[in-house]
Order: sequence, then C-alpha cells, then structure tokens
Amino acid sequence: MERGHATISSDEPAARGGTTSAQVRKDLSFFGSFGKRGLGYSVPELSSRLRKILGLEREWRVIIIGAGKIGAALAQYHGFIERGFRITAIYDNDPQKIGREVDGLTIRPIECLPTDAESAEAEIAVIAVPANAAQATADLVVEAGIQAIMSFAPRRLTVPEDVAVKMVNMAMELEGLSFALTNRQPA
Amino acid sequence: MERGHATISSDEPAARGGTTSAQVRKDLSFFGSFGKRGLGYSVPELSSRLRKILGLEREWRVIIIGAGKIGAALAQYHGFIERGFRITAIYDNDPQKIGREVDGLTIRPIECLPTDAESAEAEIAVIAVPANAAQATADLVVEAGIQAIMSFAPRRLTVPEDVAVKMVNMAMELEGLSFALTNRQPA
Repeated sequence: MERGHATISSDEPAARGGTTSAQVRKDLSFFGSFGKRGLGYSVPELSSRLRKILGLEREWRVIIIGAGKIGAALAQYHGFIERGFRITAIYDNDPQKIGREVDGLTIRPIECLPTDAESAEAEIAVIAVPANAAQATADLVVEAGIQAIMSFAPRRLTVPEDVAVKMVNMAMELEGLSFALTNRQPA
Repeated sequence: MERGHATISSDEPAARGGTTSAQVRKDLSFFGSFGKRGLGYSVPELSSRLRKILGLEREWRVIIIGAGKIGAALAQYHGFIERGFRITAIYDNDPQKIGREVDGLTIRPIECLPTDAESAEAEIAVIAVPANAAQATADLVVEAGIQAIMSFAPRRLTVPEDVAVKMVNMAMELEGLSFALTNRQPA
C-alpha cells in the first residue's frame, strides 16, 4: 500500500515471511476467499481483511506491570499506540517508584490493579517484573479478569486455558545466538 | 541448583519447558550421554554442560545500534551482563544523540562501526533502529564481520547463511494477543 501497488500476488508476502506462495494461499483460505486466480489480491482489501482477522480494527487497552527498565521503556515506546495498543496504566510495588510519572502515566500501586481493571477494562497485561515475581503477577492479572498476557519475565507462566500468553525472552534469544556462534561449523 | 537439589529427573525440565520427559532425554542425547537411568541427572553437571552447550561459559561482546527508546533501555538492562553478554558500544546516526552517555557508554557515530568492530571484536549486534533502516544496518553489521544479530525492527532481514539472526518483535506478539482475543471461542 505504501508503494502504491493496487494488487499483489502471493509471492511477495511469501518472500517477506520466508515461506512459500502455496502456504500463503493456504493460510489465507483458512479465513475465507481471498483474491482471484491470476489476478492476485487487491492490496486495500487484503490489508483491511488482515487487520480485521488480527483484531487491529479497534483499540486495545494495555496495562504494564513493573516500572523497571523494561516496563518504563515500554511505557514510552510509541510503536504500541501506532498499532492500536494504548497503554492505560503502569503499576509497581516499589514505594520509591509509585507516584512517579512515565510518559504521562503515574505509576500506581499494584494493589490498585483489581479495582482498576474492573473500571478501566484493561484487556492486555504486559508483565515486566523480576522472574521470581512473574507467576504471582500473572495470577493477579488473571484474577482481575484480564485474558491476554505478554510477559518479559524469563519464566514459564501457568494460566487457565482461556488466557493467551506471549513471551518475549531477550536473554533466551541472546543465548540462541551464543549457541549458534559456539556450535558453528568451521568455515 | 538454587533449591539445593543434587539430582533432577527429566520430568521437571519437561514440565518447565512445556514438553515431555522423553523429549528432554532425546534432546540431551543429541549432545552426548547425560545422567543415569533411574538416578536422574546430577544438577551441577547438567547445569555446567548446558552452559557449555549454549556457549555461556564465556563472555560475549555485544554492540547496540540505535540509541532510541529500545536501544537505550537495552543498554541499561542489567539482565544481559548477568548472563555474560557485555555491551561494549552503542551507535546512532543522530547528531543530537551522538556523544551522550547511556549507562556509562558514550553513543558513537554509526560511521565508527566498521573500524570499531575490527579492533573491539564485537560478536553480537543488537539492531534497534526504525524498520526502514534495518536492512541497511544489517548489511553494515555483516560487512563489519559480525555473525550474530538480534533485531528489534519489525522487518525480515536478508543476511548471508553464516550469520545467525534472532528477531524480537513486540508488536507482532501484541498482534498475536489481539488475534487470540478477537477469535476467542465464546465462553
């Protein structure tokens, strides 16, 4: 769309995604009928339908738990709001941090989460607490009725089946790189 | 080890990793002989061998390219050094940022990367630049002889086969959550 193309074949998303055009067509067909054989996909229609499938046609309310380095950086990261994820609150349990401002949000005591979540209807919780506090935080989030969690804590979380969890584990990715460098075949 | 256990069976890492004990045993056997049937694994030996396999017995030199919100947060994140990843330099192309300090590191002009990389032997590059600059940055990193990249830019990178790449795409993880929330079966 940025490049002004009106149509696109399945080859280009395949190349960008590192997969095959057959797989792109198969994946899309899971969500209904897309494009016309030999004509490709209409770019505006494909974009609009993908946004709808991904749930990006609306705004999502996101809270951040943990106002340390990562939590504070996320609160200030504008990539979220650009994609429709609005950060509505940030929490911590450290009296030194509570009451401070991060990008227009006042850091709130974690104790406020249950009542806040009810009135503000938070939908996604970002967990950016130390590993040993991650599970207790997830329990609190689930009790508050939030059904989607993105966790930066390097710890597997146990949650009910109807709660979606995505992990972002930077240390593990780095370890993947050190593994690749260590076990490299000699050139 | 933290809990003072001397041995561990394959059940526990399986439960933590969300896999089966058979898979844990199979994966470990790929790297040699571990543990004794019926006795489990010696915790210190398993830990030491896993660290060796992952390349964590030594320190790795990491550079960060892009001193924006994410890059600066990473430079200050102590989880890296705790795991043996030492950040040795941070680069940007913005004259407003160059020369400023982030956690004891002076932001350097990106133009210095090729000669720096040669003398300082950077091993891993973290790319934290805008999406439209990611590929050019990756090209620069590869030309500088660095063979491992962790990228925070939401763009697939094309690199030679002998360069390892890990992507951390927070927006994509959030979209995974909005997808899960949107396509949820009614309770």
